[in-house]
Amino acid sequence: MNKGRLEAFSDGVLAIIITIMILEMKAPTGTTLSSLSKEWPLFIGYVLSYAFVGIYWINHHRILVKANCINGRVLWANLFWMFCISFIPFTTAWAAETDFAKIPSVIYSFNVWMSTISYHLLAYSVLSSNHENCTFHGVMFMNRRNMFTFVLYTFAIVIAYITPLFAYAIHFINAIIWILPNMQEVDAQE
Amino acid sequence: MNKGRLEAFSDGVLAIIITIMILEMKAPTGTTLSSLSKEWPLFIGYVLSYAFVGIYWINHHRILVKANCINGRVLWANLFWMFCISFIPFTTAWAAETDFAKIPSVIYSFNVWMSTISYHLLAYSVLSSNHENCTFHGVMFMNRRNMFTFVLYTFAIVIAYITPLFAYAIHFINAIIWILPNMQEVDAQE
Amino acid sequence: MNKGRLEAFSDGVLAIIITIMILEMKAPTGTTLSSLSKEWPLFIGYVLSYAFVGIYWINHHRILVKANCINGRVLWANLFWMFCISFIPFTTAWAAETDFAKIPSVIYSFNVWMSTISYHLLAYSVLSSNHENCTFHGVMFMNRRNMFTFVLYTFAIVIAYITPLFAYAIHFINAIIWILPNMQEVDAQE
Amino acid sequence: MNKGRLEAFSDGVLAIIITIMILEMKAPTGTTLSSLSKEWPLFIGYVLSYAFVGIYWINHHRILVKANCINGRVLWANLFWMFCISFIPFTTAWAAETDFAKIPSVIYSFNVWMSTISYHLLAYSVLSSNHENCTFHGVMFMNRRNMFTFVLYTFAIVIAYITPLFAYAIHFINAIIWILPNMQEVDAQE
Repeated sequence: MNKGRLEAFSDGVLAIIITIMILEMKAPTGTTLSSLSKEWPLFIGYVLSYAFVGIYWINHHRILVKANCINGRVLWANLFWMFCISFIPFTTAWAAETDFAKIPSVIYSFNVWMSTISYHLLAYSVLSSNHENCTFHGVMFMNRRNMFTFVLYTFAIVIAYITPLFAYAIHFINAIIWILPNMQEVDAQE
Repeated sequence: MNKGRLEAFSDGVLAIIITIMILEMKAPTGTTLSSLSKEWPLFIGYVLSYAFVGIYWINHHRILVKANCINGRVLWANLFWMFCISFIPFTTAWAAETDFAKIPSVIYSFNVWMSTISYHLLAYSVLSSNHENCTFHGVMFMNRRNMFTFVLYTFAIVIAYITPLFAYAIHFINAIIWILPNMQEVDAQE
Repeated sequence: MNKGRLEAFSDGVLAIIITIMILEMKAPTGTTLSSLSKEWPLFIGYVLSYAFVGIYWINHHRILVKANCINGRVLWANLFWMFCISFIPFTTAWAAETDFAKIPSVIYSFNVWMSTISYHLLAYSVLSSNHENCTFHGVMFMNRRNMFTFVLYTFAIVIAYITPLFAYAIHFINAIIWILPNMQEVDAQE
Repeated sequence: MNKGRLEAFSDGVLAIIITIMILEMKAPTGTTLSSLSKEWPLFIGYVLSYAFVGIYWINHHRILVKANCINGRVLWANLFWMFCISFIPFTTAWAAETDFAKIPSVIYSFNVWMSTISYHLLAYSVLSSNHENCTFHGVMFMNRRNMFTFVLYTFAIVIAYITPLFAYAIHFINAIIWILPNMQEVDAQE
């Protein structure tokens, strides 16, 4: 089974998901800044979900770059993960268009949570098909940052039902936790 | 003729097809769970068609990975197959938006059936251009599972006219028949 | 300059163009066959334009597979060609939604004609950057089939203003002229 | 970190961005040339933004072709650059649908300006991760043409608030400045 085609297909799907979110933002009818500013919830939602999909694209790359064996289990775990991610534009639009109401925010947080679960299923299926790389396990799968993220996302579902904006703050913090170390990585190498 | 570009183009088209189905789901206008639950037919339709396209993406990969010669006949068989698949978002949306009415369900089942026919035309054209691989024939083309699937899909067109939900049950069973062995495959290798 | 990335980008754009045409077909509101049959102009238009883009994708492949040198002139000729092709979904939709009225059919034929002109500009720019392949010239550029196609497309613009359906017959004949030899090609090799 | 996948993902996103702009042009309701001519602002906007994205696709290629080390900083600089570019269809549509009104033209020019800033951040991050290529610096980053473009784009934001059409003239001139040398490049090599 050819790893290149799995990557190409995943990249295609993620490229579409990350780009169609902007299609939800329709051009304002007015010509003033205030008519544009009515779109701020969609803008915030887009920023957050763009960062989310970007983080997963990078992590997906890091899992696959170390995998040698791609079997049917990995393919379907990958398809299930993309299935979960593909709802992000839908749940982002619902949450943003209702000005981050409670139920839509719970569903958005649940969608993010499901994407994380399915990502770990994918990581696990890659792991169980590539036994020999023992070090691979510690780096990729259940490290502390992954666990912390998982707990935060679970917490966000509950908090979204009480104070939706707190849930988005959690998603924002989570994004920072994943993006910042990527930035500093290069310094460690220099 | 370069196989890589055929795969890349097919992956691009399939990635778009599998992703634009979710675009049919518009964000609900309400903020309650019941306003979301009105979208369940689209959700069911999306799950089924996503699995269907996913199965064909994997099978497409398995045909092409063994092909050495890509000629004009293969290119057009591939274009015809993608043409049939490209109607899946349209027929899924029609069936789901009419709450799985009879005629839309017949058309959906017919679309699935045509995709299978065109897939076998593609498999046959790859075969007839790669004579030397005799074992290829038995594995890829007219094996028992393919025949059973074909009979089931033909049956689904008829049954959709009588009891649409039975047709979807058949599509669901068919998806399981194709996905489950993918899952167990890895165990056989270990 | 890397040929692979030019091909990948072109494939991505063509995959989107060939797929978004189907998005123009909205699911009918009724549940009968007659509500579906109202979409026949869009279906015909989609078939014709799908074949058209498919033919160009194959021809594009054949030009590039022989090119060694990709310079800025080739890149912009390629971008201009994709620009012309990218209007096909728009002109197809206009022609189909007006039941193939005169002016929309003229514009559609003009769009097809411009795509052919820009394709020859691309072929010429590839040629002039790869002088050494003299045989390349005869095969790829101004052979009899290309000339005949060009005359037919020019004629179609005029005829579309008088009897639109004749113009579509011409487009259909042109598609056959390009697809049939692809089919028979394999027989010649065997 | 694999450069190929970064290129493939970027190509996918840019292919979608450059193509979905045409989706903003809805088929006219009438069947006359005058009903088509009402779409001229969208056509002008599309031409300009298509050229803009095309220029950046070529430049993006030229940066990456010389990069050996792709680290987290480069990945996020690339994601941020694509984020800025992904607003081009939205701001183009707003500017065109309001017949190039003042505020939408300012926002469009600002979007173009941000895309340039983020592109230089990307170029800088590639540079700082590939120290050894000293000549790379002069060619790719802060040369005279880049500086001139940057000043022009900054000027366009201000002028758009006074006379929007002047801003588009500036964008048009800028496109020429970048496209023409690409055309002549081949002559220099011959």
